[in-house]
Amino acid sequence: MNFPPTILSGMRPTGPLHLGHLLGALKNWAGLQDSYRCFYMVADWHAFFSEYEDPGMIREYTRQSVADWLSVGLDPEKSTIFVQSAVPEHAGLHLILSALTPLPWLERCPTYKEQLREVTGRDLLTYGFLGYPVLQAADIMLYRATAVPVGNDQVPHLELSREIVRRFNGLFRPVFPEPRPLLTESSRILGLDNRKMSKSYGNFIALSDPPAEIEKKVRGMITDTQRIRLSDPGHPEDCNVFSYHRLFNPGQLAEVEDCCRHARLGCTDCKKCLAGALADYLAPIREKRESWLKGDRVGEVLEAGTARARAAAAETISLVREAIKF
Amino acid sequence: MNFPPTILSGMRPTGPLHLGHLLGALKNWAGLQDSYRCFYMVADWHAFFSEYEDPGMIREYTRQSVADWLSVGLDPEKSTIFVQSAVPEHAGLHLILSALTPLPWLERCPTYKEQLREVTGRDLLTYGFLGYPVLQAADIMLYRATAVPVGNDQVPHLELSREIVRRFNGLFRPVFPEPRPLLTESSRILGLDNRKMSKSYGNFIALSDPPAEIEKKVRGMITDTQRIRLSDPGHPEDCNVFSYHRLFNPGQLAEVEDCCRHARLGCTDCKKCLAGALADYLAPIREKRESWLKGDRVGEVLEAGTARARAAAAETISLVREAIKF
Repeated sequence: MNFPPTILSGMRPTGPLHLGHLLGALKNWAGLQDSYRCFYMVADWHAFFSEYEDPGMIREYTRQSVADWLSVGLDPEKSTIFVQSAVPEHAGLHLILSALTPLPWLERCPTYKEQLREVTGRDLLTYGFLGYPVLQAADIMLYRATAVPVGNDQVPHLELSREIVRRFNGLFRPVFPEPRPLLTESSRILGLDNRKMSKSYGNFIALSDPPAEIEKKVRGMITDTQRIRLSDPGHPEDCNVFSYHRLFNPGQLAEVEDCCRHARLGCTDCKKCLAGALADYLAPIREKRESWLKGDRVGEVLEAGTARARAAAAETISLVREAIKF
Repeated sequence: MNFPPTILSGMRPTGPLHLGHLLGALKNWAGLQDSYRCFYMVADWHAFFSEYEDPGMIREYTRQSVADWLSVGLDPEKSTIFVQSAVPEHAGLHLILSALTPLPWLERCPTYKEQLREVTGRDLLTYGFLGYPVLQAADIMLYRATAVPVGNDQVPHLELSREIVRRFNGLFRPVFPEPRPLLTESSRILGLDNRKMSKSYGNFIALSDPPAEIEKKVRGMITDTQRIRLSDPGHPEDCNVFSYHRLFNPGQLAEVEDCCRHARLGCTDCKKCLAGALADYLAPIREKRESWLKGDRVGEVLEAGTARARAAAAETISLVREAIKF
């Protein structure tokens, strides 16, 4: 069978989107819009699986996330932008796939074991959390996605979806393409404290941060630890602030590097310079964001997107019901 | 909160209904119709969980089951008769409850461990089969059932649903009543071979069996094993055929017992007499069944029932979404 090139990807609405999301996924999502049918989903059920003890923020971050997506270039005319829980077929296909997913596939999943070990303060030893990859497979399969943009660390996860596809197709008939991983070429960006940028570490610059907030956050960044005095020459290659210049301030990059190496630019001034460049970089995004959040423009985008997603999902479910003779 | 007295029960459409279903559940279901809002469901998703490798018969047995229900006195004006998979809210609530059901509750479930041990020839070590009680809880909770008719052996299963109810109500707000077990007073009936009457043992008399089939089946029943010769006195209390007389031939019971004890009635004639009584007992059911199966009367009943079930389910789901702030 021939399947039209289709992408499914999503994000959990559990916090503000930040530079890590922008460079790691969103720019890539925007770039795929011209070559694929793109389905971009706010994965609120996935958020519920980890945040069920306090799900209050999910609704608000859903709206915020979509506003961010639109501001960085997702085009609702080209892409189908929707909320997972507004398309009931996700739960329906999840139930069907549950029946045919061997338990050991899930129990052996490396990310599952890792998260049970690492996440503290929340009880994730639940049935739903174990079945996370089944819901992920349902998400992908519902739109008969042929490719899924992933980072290197998510390739094993996608392999599990591919196995579920093969199992369904083998037991019944070839309703689904095997989604291939579309390795995201992304610029790696560390958080303010040199660890991975992440909501849970609180070490991020949000796409919605105003200039004053950006300046405050940049001021607290760790720089070249070998440089003690202003008169010491700096080592830009060992400095996270410099790596930010590289990403967001290319116009002044050579100058910053030269001045740092020859101790003509102190870290405080270097950070001020970066904060300004970052504020400029985010200004048009922030502006678009505000305009999208006016009135109910996000709601309108989601309404149209949900209708398109439901139509595609209903078509798949009807093929599935035929295949399983329901 | 005050919840109207409501019943939810269901059967998996995996084979023809037989005398065990009639005496063990259906007569009881019919009797509850005047004192409860009753929801009776063909549990086709549950059937899929165990029969996913060959689900072809589910659709046909769905229709047959409903025809049987109607023939033994379920009244579509009083009860809501519907098919589980036609109400997508079952899958939706199942997904939500998945998130909050601790994995150990399911892994420790005694019936789960027992079935994994006993069922052979099918691979039931799947995610869905482990989560069977979560789907059961969703079924019950979707109609905010206050009571569930159960046999003694199913009480632990229902207790798991009650625990899931308490967990939801405790985490969010008291949307659901705790369903209490309504212990079914049923006449126990053994299969033709003295084991439990069951589709998988092939030892049943179906509600739809024609007289010739009944006679053939009764002829093969085990009688009093101590009675070797016709002239030996029989022991009705040790004879399964006599227990059938007790259930289906009360008018001739005293006579049959007396003749058996005094060796005036041979087993062959005793069985002929039972087969006749059984055929008479089932004749009006069979007749109604045929009339229900004419045209698309079953389809019409299901259409109306599904609409009523969906309305009730949608109301619950909207309370649930409010409670979880979705």
